[in-house]
Amino acid sequence: MKGGRGTRTGEVMEAIRRKMANGTLSPGERLPSIRRFAAAMGVSPSTVVEAYDRLAAEGVIRSRPGSGFYPSGAVPPLALAEMGPQPDRVIDPFWVSRQSLDTAAGMPKPGCGWLPADWMPGGMIRKAIRGLARAGDGLLVDYGGTRGSPDLRRLLARQFAEEGIAAGADRILLTASGTQAIDLVCRFLLRPGDTVLVDDPCYFNFQALLRAHRARIVGVPFTPAGPDIDRFTEALATHRPRLYITNSALHNPTGATLSPQTAHRLLNAAAVHDLTIVEDDIFTGFEPEPSPRLAALDGLARVIRIGSFSKTLSASIRCGYIAAREDWVEALADLQVATNFGGPSPVAAGVVCAVLGDGGYRRHLEALRRRLARARREATDRLGALGIRPWLMPRGGFYLWCRLPDGLDSADVARAALRDDVVLAPGNVFSVSQTASGFLRFNVAQMGEARVFDVLERSMMDRR
Amino acid sequence: MKGGRGTRTGEVMEAIRRKMANGTLSPGERLPSIRRFAAAMGVSPSTVVEAYDRLAAEGVIRSRPGSGFYPSGAVPPLALAEMGPQPDRVIDPFWVSRQSLDTAAGMPKPGCGWLPADWMPGGMIRKAIRGLARAGDGLLVDYGGTRGSPDLRRLLARQFAEEGIAAGADRILLTASGTQAIDLVCRFLLRPGDTVLVDDPCYFNFQALLRAHRARIVGVPFTPAGPDIDRFTEALATHRPRLYITNSALHNPTGATLSPQTAHRLLNAAAVHDLTIVEDDIFTGFEPEPSPRLAALDGLARVIRIGSFSKTLSASIRCGYIAAREDWVEALADLQVATNFGGPSPVAAGVVCAVLGDGGYRRHLEALRRRLARARREATDRLGALGIRPWLMPRGGFYLWCRLPDGLDSADVARAALRDDVVLAPGNVFSVSQTASGFLRFNVAQMGEARVFDVLERSMMDRR
Repeated sequence: MKGGRGTRTGEVMEAIRRKMANGTLSPGERLPSIRRFAAAMGVSPSTVVEAYDRLAAEGVIRSRPGSGFYPSGAVPPLALAEMGPQPDRVIDPFWVSRQSLDTAAGMPKPGCGWLPADWMPGGMIRKAIRGLARAGDGLLVDYGGTRGSPDLRRLLARQFAEEGIAAGADRILLTASGTQAIDLVCRFLLRPGDTVLVDDPCYFNFQALLRAHRARIVGVPFTPAGPDIDRFTEALATHRPRLYITNSALHNPTGATLSPQTAHRLLNAAAVHDLTIVEDDIFTGFEPEPSPRLAALDGLARVIRIGSFSKTLSASIRCGYIAAREDWVEALADLQVATNFGGPSPVAAGVVCAVLGDGGYRRHLEALRRRLARARREATDRLGALGIRPWLMPRGGFYLWCRLPDGLDSADVARAALRDDVVLAPGNVFSVSQTASGFLRFNVAQMGEARVFDVLERSMMDRR
Repeated sequence: MKGGRGTRTGEVMEAIRRKMANGTLSPGERLPSIRRFAAAMGVSPSTVVEAYDRLAAEGVIRSRPGSGFYPSGAVPPLALAEMGPQPDRVIDPFWVSRQSLDTAAGMPKPGCGWLPADWMPGGMIRKAIRGLARAGDGLLVDYGGTRGSPDLRRLLARQFAEEGIAAGADRILLTASGTQAIDLVCRFLLRPGDTVLVDDPCYFNFQALLRAHRARIVGVPFTPAGPDIDRFTEALATHRPRLYITNSALHNPTGATLSPQTAHRLLNAAAVHDLTIVEDDIFTGFEPEPSPRLAALDGLARVIRIGSFSKTLSASIRCGYIAAREDWVEALADLQVATNFGGPSPVAAGVVCAVLGDGGYRRHLEALRRRLARARREATDRLGALGIRPWLMPRGGFYLWCRLPDGLDSADVARAALRDDVVLAPGNVFSVSQTASGFLRFNVAQMGEARVFDVLERSMMDRR
């Protein structure tokens, strides 16, 4: 039994915590060497290595290369960017998020995770906003109910019913964003040190979010049909994770779609180990036709569906949702009141509801899908000319997960491209095991300019 | 040394955790009796009591009255409503929040924490929203930068400068709400089991939020000039808290104002013990003239200022802020990206910015202050006729913290009033030590209807 609370590793961790708490180990003082401490505690050196690694993952201690481990400080602030091994800013999830969010509007962002502004339904949003200006005072100034707009929840419940998910509006909680929805679920279910499974590769912010919860992250190799189910089952037995977070449709970063067989086997394995699953359905609007959903197979028993409207409607008007077991929704609503006082902005929910109810929205989605199919073909051709090939051809969405020509490291390429003001997303940002250095994730909607390909070619040539 | 990690209490807690982790204690099985376990561990019974209490506060175990303690489940979800002793729903912070947020619009809410919708600047908000409908696509659909609207941050920085706080826009982070701002700070600074000081009484959601962070909450008796500074200093020495959360101006629930002497002594004590302070400045717009601010005295070194626009502008258009040390703001921005992807809605910030920049907003605040002064006098008179007296007369804002006639328990009165569809806020919701049963917090802006006083009188009479 490796690393559980009552194990030798746990005892070593506890001993270090005790030393820090009672002052026998002061901030700034180096931790005992592994060999010495192993002898003192009567355990094997590998047990001490494991204990130190886990304390480092929790942020309690910090390694200084070549010097050993040190307390992070009596009560270390949660400086996420410094937690865990981050050898290189260019493959740090925070760095990529900030580069994407904070760089100037004109800069090409083939590494970012959203559509250009002029692909979004600006006209419908303006119409909805003008409608809102005529709304009553209550909607414009009051907090609103704890679960968020009943109109929007009813509309979502109807959509879910069409997908075979019978969740009434009472099983839906609106949130401030899709990310905040997952965050709320993590707060509800996780305790520091709990293990969470993610796909390898997976959306990089899952890792950032889980670091904020001081969770232990275990990656499962991903195949074109979903997670490698044998390795998934193995991981359940070995690590006893509390949670698995995934995208079933148009997986980020690969664009893959979960197969029915994988979905079925995955849920059976989850049942054996009482695993809870977060199915992040954020790309659902991009699918040409429906694909298997864990939430639909499972009936929202152990699967929690989350989503938002950031990718196809607006990321500025922030609104996400959670659909789950009714008693969980109840507890999650309490948690959201405690941590954000109330649900999402009623004004935001009002705009989203108006746009989703607009007949033009369905046409907007159809047009988006056609436009993306075209962009995907074009980008594939132009990347192919540079020797960059997609791992698979996605059915929809804007991502292409591509392999670079042999021997090229995508972090080098990304670093070189940034000097030319082009933000790329190197593979290892997405990889828990750091085994995706030969990959880049491209956003085909952000590659209209020829300059992107010029910079890419030059960056691959010199890797300065 | 009571309850620290390396103590006997800590060892007992660890032993129970180990039993739960390795299955020697299964979910549903009662924990060893206090006497028996004390003997087995070679510690005093009071140590086991303390350990069980703290595990219960962490949500790891749960007490069943008359039967003992049980594991909450292998990995217990964070069901806040069940954490800690909550003998009575009517004095449970969650219950009061939900009653206030989820009850029908027409129901009088003298217990709630906001103004009636028609007291808010609806006209200016509509104008700002109409302006927004003409904004560019970028503002309407993009995520926006990680720190939130530069325009709004610059505007806030100018306001802070007028108060003597020299914080450039770089030291300000916009958030999704004032509560979310405090939540982010707690995530940054707190670890489960850390101690946090609050005023007794204090805003009830501070307690709910801190429970969500599994913090240990210690109350400091509150005086009309701020926290009782001797007890505050004592608490610093005894409990070594990581954080103190307070309202300096128009304190919730009492309406008190921090005196310059208390502010000065408080900061000196904080410096000695390296305490960080969150100054929640949410009622600042209601002040007739400026009062001392910890953030101004301290220059945002160990004080973090947070605020929002929910009370005087709109609670539906959600936006809050944090002003703090620059390196902290940097780390907090990372945390916000990880947990909410990006800052607050750029659309929300746009509306807030437009209204704050509207010349009419200052007039709106002046009118609000006059109207509230009148409402406060009227409510005081009418409450006085029922024998209900304010603890002090606030300089502004909408709260009156009132003592009931001798012998009356405000929880009984609140329960009776609710049967007549009037939501009250009983004193112990605000009191960590549960010593405010003789108090009610009134919102004078929500007491225009005579029915409120009729129901109050009847509820005091029968206390059914």
